[in-house]
Amino acid sequence: MKKSKDIDEMIQQLFAGNRRAASRLITRVENETEDHHEIMKKIYPRTGQATIVGITGSGGAGKSTLTDHLIQKFREQGKTVGVIVVDPSSPFSGGALLGDRIRLQRHFLDDGVYIRSLASRGCLGGLSSATYNVIRILEAMGMDIIIVETLGAGQDEIDIIHIANTCILVATPGMGDDIQAMKAGIMEIADIIALNKSDLEGANRSLRQLQTALSVASLEEGQWAPRVIPTVSIGSRPEDLKGIDELASAITEHQEYLHTTRSIDKVKFERVEEELGLVFKDELQRLIFKGLRGTGKKRKYINSIIEGKNDPYSVVEEILNTYLIRKKKK
Amino acid sequence: MKKSKDIDEMIQQLFAGNRRAASRLITRVENETEDHHEIMKKIYPRTGQATIVGITGSGGAGKSTLTDHLIQKFREQGKTVGVIVVDPSSPFSGGALLGDRIRLQRHFLDDGVYIRSLASRGCLGGLSSATYNVIRILEAMGMDIIIVETLGAGQDEIDIIHIANTCILVATPGMGDDIQAMKAGIMEIADIIALNKSDLEGANRSLRQLQTALSVASLEEGQWAPRVIPTVSIGSRPEDLKGIDELASAITEHQEYLHTTRSIDKVKFERVEEELGLVFKDELQRLIFKGLRGTGKKRKYINSIIEGKNDPYSVVEEILNTYLIRKKKK
Repeated sequence: MKKSKDIDEMIQQLFAGNRRAASRLITRVENETEDHHEIMKKIYPRTGQATIVGITGSGGAGKSTLTDHLIQKFREQGKTVGVIVVDPSSPFSGGALLGDRIRLQRHFLDDGVYIRSLASRGCLGGLSSATYNVIRILEAMGMDIIIVETLGAGQDEIDIIHIANTCILVATPGMGDDIQAMKAGIMEIADIIALNKSDLEGANRSLRQLQTALSVASLEEGQWAPRVIPTVSIGSRPEDLKGIDELASAITEHQEYLHTTRSIDKVKFERVEEELGLVFKDELQRLIFKGLRGTGKKRKYINSIIEGKNDPYSVVEEILNTYLIRKKKK
Repeated sequence: MKKSKDIDEMIQQLFAGNRRAASRLITRVENETEDHHEIMKKIYPRTGQATIVGITGSGGAGKSTLTDHLIQKFREQGKTVGVIVVDPSSPFSGGALLGDRIRLQRHFLDDGVYIRSLASRGCLGGLSSATYNVIRILEAMGMDIIIVETLGAGQDEIDIIHIANTCILVATPGMGDDIQAMKAGIMEIADIIALNKSDLEGANRSLRQLQTALSVASLEEGQWAPRVIPTVSIGSRPEDLKGIDELASAITEHQEYLHTTRSIDKVKFERVEEELGLVFKDELQRLIFKGLRGTGKKRKYINSIIEGKNDPYSVVEEILNTYLIRKKKK
């Protein structure tokens, strides 16, 4: 454990925008070192002001290339940009997929950009409290915009709604049946849909399908109407690209919508609510399993249940009564 | 809350195989009524002996039709069969997709078959403790085989490994890139892969891809080698069907493998370990949120965090100190 003085110094450097301090603090928070609570407590008051943009979609849809162009646009507007790429690691094989993150490297020399890969929780599914904490660190570092890129598979893409102010779903032509599935849920989280690779065959049909799906969604008075923007994110010449300006403008418009309607308050509330729930769960599990670990008690309990002599509910009651008791009301 | 005597009577009826009692108890457990701990405590000792078969795969792969045929096969062998269909409800729209569950209805008049749909946890992802409890209820009812059908999307299909003794992945020809993704994780959970719709074009190629993927997987000495079985589960004439007998035999062989190698002990241990963890989490959350609910305290805490006056870690510490304290060691 680092001395508290060292941590304080790192945090001061972070507040000054120091990338090295950010990297070191992120590593501590990601690894949940003993002092990570202390770190988070100290940086929280300096957070909550950044624009958080979520980008989700299937593998190969072009999230990274779109992110790359968005960084460029925001930099042209004089804004600093933090990027968090949540990489799903196989729950069995381990190891994050690097894929085409490589192209983001061109921003590595720009002091106004900070990019970091994070592993998702794998087996447990969903974004970890570490992801939420790393976003806070990038906010404390002074980043104006934070892009969180998640693979649109399973829980991560649903969790993103709890963090991002603006959610972009990256779709591609010819998704066919997927449109049906999307209607059921995913589309309801997207503020903006980028129909990427819109130069491919079938793009017009997909565009119409998406627009139809969106048009039948019932909106309340004054509610943001999700929109589809056809994009092309890969091309050897700049004129091959398409829709990047429109996408960046749509993000700005959605932010303006959030602020003029005060919907931003709800977004912020939900984000903190989610964080609070995660910290709770982590903390409680830590407390309980600290009491069980290493003693062989857990194995004994499990075997007694298998043998039909006990059941999980009685075991949990017993452990709670042994390790925790509720204080009486004064 | 039902009187304890009524519950006892229902449980006795359940042990006698009464379907109505099963339905009523399942509803109580699913809705987490106040007495559901009591119910589970009483039925646990009568559980743990059934063969649990997990069936997972994408929507439209043919899980329901395969389940339908497997029920038939097991019934011909004189075994009773419980079926749990975990339906993903949209985290936003709610409501389970019924799809082609209808075809399972032909078993509804057979006393040796009990079928139940359960909603998955939606937003939270993964199988709920209710799912685990419902399986226990079907075991206590005396079902020899319990089939748990989950949509292969996200967390449910990974969780299934914690419950099922034998996991069947239903794949279809022409999955293309999906094979790549499957290699990374899902295939490692499948004991048997049913390549359904194997009369379609491209089936041979998919079969070879799957067999290659399986053949390169490293196995330990004596470990079960996952196998692919080409199947056809829809057809107007019985001779149109394919691979159903082989699939049923493979399940039996895998069960024999588990028992002769004593791997079944590990399977049972992991199942109880998972259940214990879920009960812990549920119970702790209930305790904590009971303290917070209705008092407006939660909102106050969240707002203080948004305003930068507080942070989740300090809030959680405060709540834990207020509502729970650890007993001193005697």
